[in-house]
Amino acid sequence: MSVTTPAGFRAAGVTAGLKASGNPDLALVINDGPSKAAAAVFTSNRVAAAPIHWSRQVLSDGRVDAVVLNSGGANACTGPEGFQNTHVTAEKVADELGISATDVAVCSTGLIGEQLPMDKILPGVEAAAAALAHDGGAAAAAAIMTTDTVPKEAAWTSAPNGDGISYSIGGMAKGAGMLAPGLATMLVVITTDAAVETEALDVALRDAVRVTFNRADSDGCMSTNDTVLLMSSGAVGAFPDMAEFTAGLTEVCAKLARALIADAEGASHDIAITTLNADSERDAEVVSRSVARSNLFKAAIFGNDPNWGRVLASVGTTDAVFDPDKLNVSINGVQICRNGGIGDSRDLVDLKPREVTVEIDLAAGDASATIWTNDLTHAYVEENSAYSS
Amino acid sequence: MSVTTPAGFRAAGVTAGLKASGNPDLALVINDGPSKAAAAVFTSNRVAAAPIHWSRQVLSDGRVDAVVLNSGGANACTGPEGFQNTHVTAEKVADELGISATDVAVCSTGLIGEQLPMDKILPGVEAAAAALAHDGGAAAAAAIMTTDTVPKEAAWTSAPNGDGISYSIGGMAKGAGMLAPGLATMLVVITTDAAVETEALDVALRDAVRVTFNRADSDGCMSTNDTVLLMSSGAVGAFPDMAEFTAGLTEVCAKLARALIADAEGASHDIAITTLNADSERDAEVVSRSVARSNLFKAAIFGNDPNWGRVLASVGTTDAVFDPDKLNVSINGVQICRNGGIGDSRDLVDLKPREVTVEIDLAAGDASATIWTNDLTHAYVEENSAYSS
Repeated sequence: MSVTTPAGFRAAGVTAGLKASGNPDLALVINDGPSKAAAAVFTSNRVAAAPIHWSRQVLSDGRVDAVVLNSGGANACTGPEGFQNTHVTAEKVADELGISATDVAVCSTGLIGEQLPMDKILPGVEAAAAALAHDGGAAAAAAIMTTDTVPKEAAWTSAPNGDGISYSIGGMAKGAGMLAPGLATMLVVITTDAAVETEALDVALRDAVRVTFNRADSDGCMSTNDTVLLMSSGAVGAFPDMAEFTAGLTEVCAKLARALIADAEGASHDIAITTLNADSERDAEVVSRSVARSNLFKAAIFGNDPNWGRVLASVGTTDAVFDPDKLNVSINGVQICRNGGIGDSRDLVDLKPREVTVEIDLAAGDASATIWTNDLTHAYVEENSAYSS
Repeated sequence: MSVTTPAGFRAAGVTAGLKASGNPDLALVINDGPSKAAAAVFTSNRVAAAPIHWSRQVLSDGRVDAVVLNSGGANACTGPEGFQNTHVTAEKVADELGISATDVAVCSTGLIGEQLPMDKILPGVEAAAAALAHDGGAAAAAAIMTTDTVPKEAAWTSAPNGDGISYSIGGMAKGAGMLAPGLATMLVVITTDAAVETEALDVALRDAVRVTFNRADSDGCMSTNDTVLLMSSGAVGAFPDMAEFTAGLTEVCAKLARALIADAEGASHDIAITTLNADSERDAEVVSRSVARSNLFKAAIFGNDPNWGRVLASVGTTDAVFDPDKLNVSINGVQICRNGGIGDSRDLVDLKPREVTVEIDLAAGDASATIWTNDLTHAYVEENSAYSS
């Protein structure tokens, strides 16, 4: 279950020497076709890294032949020299693979504000090109890790169609938002051997990302480098039903997003904050996200404290439709706030398990949304105060 | 320098027994007039505590004769019983002082979601009424403390007018936003012996609060109980120039806001984030606040790490007018980011002092604004994960 699960893709992960640890730090994924259709979603941060500017250009014609990813350096806030380094990296990939540089996407992750060591990147690209393999997905997933403790991969396979043909979707990811500290960034590469045109890929990807990666909000910090890239090889010759394809893609994205939260740096709890009975899905998302961004709430969960007052205080800062006297809040199934006031005993709530569920009932409609986040821990503060000094 | 510095006010602070520590926990401030004009600013949190609902009603006619404040319980999310408890408290103050309950403002601070122990509050009100004194300001300031380590007071005196009469403004405050944990809340009482009508008080107060308390953003969490109350006794018979009065009021508010940040729980740095050369004051405030709310930036400052990449990553999430390639950032006077890229060496930045200045130059206009915040520390996580369990 990786980016090489779908037919038509090869991948590699090698050690270019960017990381002091000597761990693998450069990955390459190539689409052998016949289709080269691709779609991507990039960070909305206006301070975007050089590889974001480059890859946006590459995606503008909906074709990607290969993507090269490095950990150990974000290449963000690095000016014209940084952009030139991204360009040279893409050219090197193109030379090695006999393709056009304008069809090579580039992703980087690491410390902001430092130039990449090109004397290590370029030999690394050569090594990765030589190592490309049909079973290289796992090596690629390992090479994009920064402070991730485990590689993150997922795959999904469709039921056979009328001709007995199944297609699959595979993916890899690293880093939860900017939780993985200056080694910032969420990078995701997803592949499929179904034959899907660029425009349909784009619609499916945006649908899937909206309800998965965009609802994983570990620490509210948006990276300069976030990229989710989807590539279709069409190698199995299946032209999928797009509703089915989108459902499969959403499942892969959801698994990867859940894996990011589960491995978020310093976290001791994974928290699913679901807002129910909202007037609109937008309201439900806004309310869940406001709680996900409350340091007081997140610190309370770290302390195994079912502090529903901090949930209500966050809900109250939003413009969602609700009556404060009709709010109900449950934590791990215990309704500790009823009609905006005191409910069942907080002593009934067991917060020792890593997974925590918070349900906020707005009593204002029938829409709902879940945001995943983490608790605020000593380890988070430690990791994020110490990494670059 | 306290709420009893201006003539026409008496105050008291007593121990009602709400705090396990046995420290003073109930304060009373009375305006002996001749004027009883008052204005207030309340939390914009839609989940507002019972005393907020009550005091909004009291202020609706612009007259406040007295304010009673308790620490040791927020009386928030306490339903009809909580509102009734606030009402009964105001009635008790009115009975003791021979005034109308509808002219008695009430403020509470402490844990959300617990009923106040009225068997302690009511005798506490009796004791406070008996203890009212012209030099009682310091005792009142001590009685509203929660996790504050020092009482916060400030005063300002005008130059004599043509008749040789000076007037003064005095204030007390507790708690920085919701930084002081479930013992939430910023409560501020400001007094003046100048004669100012309600409407002018209101304008001056909103002007002063906008650039002081509203720009102290310790942890981004908005309390259910925040109150800033301004009362005028007119006891010295001075009708001030309102520009001068507003300047004096702003100075008192700024000193109190600075004191709140300096005593924010768990903090090891006070950080002034100034955005310069913005297209509008709104842009400058939005940019500074985005950085003030970045956990990654705040954790870096805790680690004495001048991480300008995290400043730019926050600036990039805003809709302010700027060109990413023209951003300059200085930390403690060292311009470590120039034109959106690498500037002077980060090793030149000394982050050991408690006070930190961050200057973000948007190169887009001539407006500016400063937001004060704190770093994100182990002590913050500890205090906010442990207090109620």
